[in-house]
Amino acid sequence: MFARIDHIGIAVEDLDAALALYERDYEMVLVHREVVEEQGVEAVLLDVGENHVELLAPLGPDTPVGKFLAKRGPGIHHVAYQTTDIVAELERLTAAGVRLIDETPRTGIRGSSVAFLHPKSSGGVLTEIVQPSHEGH
Amino acid sequence: MFARIDHIGIAVEDLDAALALYERDYEMVLVHREVVEEQGVEAVLLDVGENHVELLAPLGPDTPVGKFLAKRGPGIHHVAYQTTDIVAELERLTAAGVRLIDETPRTGIRGSSVAFLHPKSSGGVLTEIVQPSHEGH
Repeated sequence: MFARIDHIGIAVEDLDAALALYERDYEMVLVHREVVEEQGVEAVLLDVGENHVELLAPLGPDTPVGKFLAKRGPGIHHVAYQTTDIVAELERLTAAGVRLIDETPRTGIRGSSVAFLHPKSSGGVLTEIVQPSHEGH
Repeated sequence: MFARIDHIGIAVEDLDAALALYERDYEMVLVHREVVEEQGVEAVLLDVGENHVELLAPLGPDTPVGKFLAKRGPGIHHVAYQTTDIVAELERLTAAGVRLIDETPRTGIRGSSVAFLHPKSSGGVLTEIVQPSHEGH
């Protein structure tokens, strides 16, 4: 059972131009900025109530987000659902027949534990499961 | 200021196949099902905490969601942010220079008031503003 939508991940060409929209026009509060080398992105998190928007700018054209932008342009890249026990959730999903990209959780933004489901099992939607590093974040 | 992510809208070819994934495997609770003729979709809402997933199946190939599926395949179609005063929010966004598709709210799923922003103003992300018909729904 997922507790909430943790975030939507949005692929952008230019982080500062996107921040002008999300911070200034949408009045969302920037709470975190981090280069995630492993995923080839610079990412920022903005608060929307208890949910977040994660803006993702690629570190280069050969990264997953770089390829996404080249193919589809800026837009919604993935959705992440929040859980309080990612290991149990991945076991439950596997038992239900859902294929995983990450069989075991890895470290995501802001010290969270994350895993991606395989798009072939998730109706074409890139779907991430997130356990925040501290409850409520 | 948006209160939370109200929902993500996901375009699907087959509503019942998608429900098997979202209800059975993801354990989300189906709370509403409605044909929205004006938007050319049959839509279902599932609860994810205080957020929702909205699955959208087109009523025909010439509808917006039908064209989206033909071009991009199943996937995330839009994001909707929740507000308690959509009229004030649209005025504020217009003053900030954001272009709107809907200058005045129209009726969305489950009696909500909704308006779409113009993708040219929203970084390529189809973005909807929602005021639920009853606070908290």
